[in-house]
Parts: sequence; C-alpha cells; structure tokens
Amino acid sequence: MECQNYNISRDVERENLNLNPLQRGGILPKEARKALHDFGDGYSVCDYCGGRLDEIAKPSLSGFLEDLAKFLQVDDVRTTHGARESKFAVMHGICEPADVIVVDGNAHYTTHLAAERNKLEIVEVPSSGYPEFKIDMNQYKKTLENAIDEYGEIKLALLTHIDGNYGNLSDASEFGKICSKLGVPSLLNCAYSMGRLPIESNKWNLDFVVGSGHKSMAASGPIGVLGMKHEWGETMLKRSPRHVKKEVEMLGCTSRGAPIATLMASLPHVIERVNKWNEEVNLSRNFVSQLEEIDGITQIGIKPTNHDLVRFDTPILHEISKFHPRKGFFLYEELKSRKIVGIKRGQTEWFKCSTYGMTKNQRDYIVDSFKEIVEKFNK
Amino acid sequence: MECQNYNISRDVERENLNLNPLQRGGILPKEARKALHDFGDGYSVCDYCGGRLDEIAKPSLSGFLEDLAKFLQVDDVRTTHGARESKFAVMHGICEPADVIVVDGNAHYTTHLAAERNKLEIVEVPSSGYPEFKIDMNQYKKTLENAIDEYGEIKLALLTHIDGNYGNLSDASEFGKICSKLGVPSLLNCAYSMGRLPIESNKWNLDFVVGSGHKSMAASGPIGVLGMKHEWGETMLKRSPRHVKKEVEMLGCTSRGAPIATLMASLPHVIERVNKWNEEVNLSRNFVSQLEEIDGITQIGIKPTNHDLVRFDTPILHEISKFHPRKGFFLYEELKSRKIVGIKRGQTEWFKCSTYGMTKNQRDYIVDSFKEIVEKFNK
Ligand SMILES: Cc1ncc(COP(=O)(O)O)c(C=O)c1O
Ligand SMILES: Cc1ncc(COP(=O)(O)O)c(C=O)c1O
Repeated sequence: MECQNYNISRDVERENLNLNPLQRGGILPKEARKALHDFGDGYSVCDYCGGRLDEIAKPSLSGFLEDLAKFLQVDDVRTTHGARESKFAVMHGICEPADVIVVDGNAHYTTHLAAERNKLEIVEVPSSGYPEFKIDMNQYKKTLENAIDEYGEIKLALLTHIDGNYGNLSDASEFGKICSKLGVPSLLNCAYSMGRLPIESNKWNLDFVVGSGHKSMAASGPIGVLGMKHEWGETMLKRSPRHVKKEVEMLGCTSRGAPIATLMASLPHVIERVNKWNEEVNLSRNFVSQLEEIDGITQIGIKPTNHDLVRFDTPILHEISKFHPRKGFFLYEELKSRKIVGIKRGQTEWFKCSTYGMTKNQRDYIVDSFKEIVEKFNK
Repeated sequence: MECQNYNISRDVERENLNLNPLQRGGILPKEARKALHDFGDGYSVCDYCGGRLDEIAKPSLSGFLEDLAKFLQVDDVRTTHGARESKFAVMHGICEPADVIVVDGNAHYTTHLAAERNKLEIVEVPSSGYPEFKIDMNQYKKTLENAIDEYGEIKLALLTHIDGNYGNLSDASEFGKICSKLGVPSLLNCAYSMGRLPIESNKWNLDFVVGSGHKSMAASGPIGVLGMKHEWGETMLKRSPRHVKKEVEMLGCTSRGAPIATLMASLPHVIERVNKWNEEVNLSRNFVSQLEEIDGITQIGIKPTNHDLVRFDTPILHEISKFHPRKGFFLYEELKSRKIVGIKRGQTEWFKCSTYGMTKNQRDYIVDSFKEIVEKFNK
C-alpha cells in the first residue's frame, strides 16, 4: 500500500516570528530538546518502571513530581495528557452523571466538552461582556449561591485563570475563598497560567489546579498537570482492587513517553521564567500600547492587560481588506513576507496574538511591521 | 526554588541491545526522528487547525487517517493517547455503569482498569492455564453465551490479539464471527499486533480495533489508535451540541503534538515491516529453539511461537542465583557487561523478552551470551 504525502514539516512556523498564542508557551528550551531526543522512542520513560509511572526513579519522575508539587503549592500532583484530560478526570472522579457544576463564562471549550463527556449540567457565570469580558467575583458568588439554592449540591466550581480569548486574569484567591466558604470543590484551569505566572494553589485554598505542558510549560505535547489538595487523593488516586499498584482514574499510567521527559527537563527553565513574569507583562503592555497607536486598532479585554495573550479589534485592517486586491488575505501575506506568522489567513476584523518570550527588538519589529502595513494601504 | 537532578538520560537503554518487549516496537525510524525534531514544540501540529485535529491539512492528518483506515481495514479511525485510552473511550461511549462485559483471561491490566474506571463488571474467559495459556475460541463462545443467559445484554466483548505475557496469538477472525452471531459488539486489543502484523478488521468482522503507537507502531509515546465500523461513528464520534465541530468522546482533540507526527512519519516503515511479519516470526522461532538448547530454559505459551514476545521458564538461572555471590542480580549484570539490557534486575526464575527488529547476528549474539553465562556458572 502506498501512503500519501503528509507534508510533515514545520519550518515556516518554527523559523519565523509566530504570533499564535497557542504556540508561544510550548517552545522547548535546549534541555528539553535533548530530553526529546533521548526519550523519543516509544515507551521511553518505562525502562525502570516498577508498576507506577509516578514512582519511577530513573529518570526520576518521583523527584520531579515532588518539585512540581512544591512549585504549584499542591499536596499531590500527577501528569495527564493535557488540561482537558485533567478536567475530565476531576469531573469523572468526583461527579455523577446529571450533577450540576458551575463554570465561568470565559471557560475554554474543553471545559464544556469535559462536562458533556461526563454528562454534567453546566451553570454559567456571565462575564461583563464587551469590551472587557471580565469575570467578576461578586457575580461568581451570586451565581454559585443561586445554583446551590436551585439544585442543592454543586459538585464542582471551575474558574479559568487566564482565558484563551482575551487573556483576562481572574481572581483565583477570591474564587478559592468563595468556594471554600460555600463548601463547593474548586478547580482552577491554569492552562494559560501554570508555567507562565506563579500558581499558589494552597494559599488560594483551591482543591484542584490543572495545567497544560504543551501550552504553557515549555513541553512537547500532549501533557497536562493535575494538582490537588491531599484530601482528594483518596478519590482521585484510588487504586484498583485487582491491580493494587495502579490508580484507576489515571488508567494505571498516563504520560508514558517523550512529553513527560521534556516537561521534566524544562522545569528549571519554567521556574525561572515564572519568576520574571512581571517583566513579561510589562513587555506585553508596551506592545499593546504601541499597536494601539495605530488608529483603528484597540485592545479588548481587561486593560491594561495582565497577560501576553491579547485580543485586538482591528476595524482598520478590515477596511483595507475591502478594497485590497487580495481581499482578507492581504494581512496574512504582508506579515508572512516580513517573516511574521501565526495570524489566521483571511482574518482582518480582529485577532488575538502573543509575543511571549520574544525579545524587545522582535516585538518592536512586529509593531513596526503592522504600522508599515497599515500605512502602505490606508489611503 | 532549586530542582533535583532527575537524571534525564537514556543512553544505556538506547545504545545496548534492549530485550524489553515494551521497547522493541516503538523505536523510531529516521523519518520519525525528523518529525520528532520538527514537531517537538508544544502544540506543534495545531498551526493550521480549523477546529478538528483529524481534519488538519498541513501536516495532512486527514490524509494520514485515510491511509491508516485503509491499512487496518476500518471505516473510521481516530488517534487517542494509547491502547488503554482507546479501550476506555469505547467502554465509556457504548456502556453504562454496572453493565457487564466479557474479557479474555489474558487481558492486559489496562483492560481491567478501563472497565473499572467505567464501573463495568467483567466476566472472564479462562485461558487453558500452564504452560500454554491459550484462549480457546470454543471456550470464549461458551463463556459469552453463558454471560448472555445470566446477565441479558452484554455490551462489549474484548479479546487480546497478542497478549503481553506469553505473546499468544488469538483467533481474531473466529472471535469476530462469534460476537457478530451473538449480537455482541467486539473489540480486538491490538496493542502488540497493530504495526507488527496485518490487521484486517472488516474482514474479521470486528466492531472496534485498538492499537498502541508507542508499543507497536514505531511512534513516540503516548499515542493510540481507535478504529471502528462505520455504524459506531454516530455514538463514538458524536459532536458537541455547543461546539458543533468537536467530538465529545475525544474531548475535541486528542494527540495534539509530536507523537502523532512520528506516527504519521512512521506509517510507510510500519506498512513495510508488517508485510515482512512472517520473516520476523521465523527469526523469533529460531531464537527460541536456540535458547531452548540450554537445559533448564523452556518457552511457555503457544508453541511454536507466533510473536516476537516470548516467555521462558528458566530454572537453571534460578539455580545459579542461589549460590552466585551476586545472588539474583548476576543475570542482569552478566548481560549488561555484554551490552544486553531489558531484563529486570534480580529476575531469574523466568523472563519475557523480544528480539523484534534485531538482525540475525544480534539475535545469535544474545543466544551465545546466555549460553556463555550458563556455562560459566553452572557447575
Ligand atoms: C484556557 C484553556 N484551557 C484549556 C485549554 C486546553 O489545553 P489542553 O490542550 O492541555 O487540553 C486551552 C487551550 O487552548 C485553553 O486556552
Ligand atoms: C496487550 C496490551 N494491551 C495494552 C497495553 C497498553 O498499551 P498503551 O500503553 O498504549 O495503553 C499493553 C501494554 O503493555 C499491552 O501489552
């Protein structure tokens, strides 16, 4: 049988400046590149497994998980295949079909899918809407209280720490306080925060935190993180009666290959960058104010931004697309000719982007490019 | 915060002859090594995603899945995170808690865990026991019929195509026939077969086949395969009412990173090796008969073997361990000094091993090493 040509290369996206927010936090540092090479084959981390992935001593998964727990301020931690798989596991572990959970209105689609796959009902906390789309904690509290009144027990409350549309930072500490006061288990979705900014799970009084290695922890995908308070270990990490070493909710082992090796190798790098998060936010704010110097480009979401993912309304670009011979494709093509990628082909009314990890010069170059493009066509 | 040293290297296991059966089918060919390098960062395959992983055109995941479906003779196919995750998804998709399923007595622990995580009851088809441990299809039929009599509906019947303890090949075609006659959905666990030997799912009349990329398809872990008859697509690939492109049971997307790029890059290599499976079996049989020339080493499981994974009873090695100054460690150490690894430290009463993909010379060298070691100490 003849195979098709799958075009398995990624030079353009790796070698140019990639503004796709999805791709900025998952770039491997050189230590992780080496781990990827060493642990590239099949079940590479399983050579010295005594039956428990999380207890493997060579490479030291056990030592790594200890450090990771400390870094996140959680009591127990496991790796999964991603943030969505962590959310699914928690919902599967502590809820029953038809249970009701509360979720913020900026939740990622994977939160909805994890709930749907578990046959749960969702009550939603509305955001403040255009242009801020803020999740207000008084609103969260009110919605949660009403849900308790209406449905009795609420098995889980979820908050998106940084959402994937506006890069809004929500108040995790207040969320933890509200949930623990109301006796509702709390889960903070840190897909866009864990590995970028500090997570202080126990200080914030959270029951669960989930993260995404490929999104924000400089790891090769797919890999996720699931941290929890000790009291949840009994439920979430329950062992099989038949295979007494194996944790049922983890199906025995989760990340049995290269991704966990890259996550381990990246941890020191990740800790270091998290310590410098404030600098990153400043660079991001600076990037926003420079772009906003262009008439017809405005950041939406909370201002000033607290994250590298930022969303812009760009009516000026949409105007240009109306008379440009290449129509909506002009922006993508103009950027690409300047070695900038990551904004979808055809998109001009708005875009989201991130310059996470870029140098000041690179960010300035991107701003200048946008200015140049607008000037070139805005007549 | 200071990280521990996790000892993230794997030179010994990569550079020596590794007999661990888990590791033999997941070694990357050079095309996959290149894909690993190109797609090492984060969400690498997602650059051009329009909302569906399986429909991405660059790299061509859609083309790859078409080819894979053809190769396995299935109507629909998706990637998952592993064989266990595929089994979990099928059970989750088509069963309800407290349902009864039938499983062969040689099933992998992950089959039991997938059932436990789904709160299913297991009825087991006994194997023939020592020394063959064969799953007889008359026995399977009888057990399945009895289970139907006792419990009414049986929602799923699973058979391990090649089991991980004895390397026994079971009769997939007969299994498909029995299940379809009795109206029970069938799942063949091909973790140790898909990517090594031909899978003819539709010809065998199977509802589901699951495979393991890292175990048998020359892919970087974790990645699995889930193939099905078209009629199951409606249940297993149902879309979210809220996010209409997203498949709920897949949580939207599954293998969003390097593993799928390696699986894609390896497919031509895998197709080629599957075509040469008979040669591989002959080499494995030859290896067994040579090892059996040593008094006190006997293959167990079906004879002659039909697979590269073989299990030996080794009373002679156990005898030696009783008076050897290094006790049970002598075997591991003697082998290691000969650049052979993959048999657990301390194990001497029996072992399982695989020489899959090794040259005739390498296999002979391993046989000679065992002979040498026994001769050296057996006085
Ligand atoms: C807020 C948020 N949560 C979860 C996810 C999904 O992460 P993962 O791929 O690790 O499941 C994303 C991905 O975009 C996200 O933005
Ligand atoms: C027969 C069998 N099934 C399933 C598995 C698990 O495969 P995966 O890691 O892809 O879940 C194994 C692994 O050893 C196996 O031997």
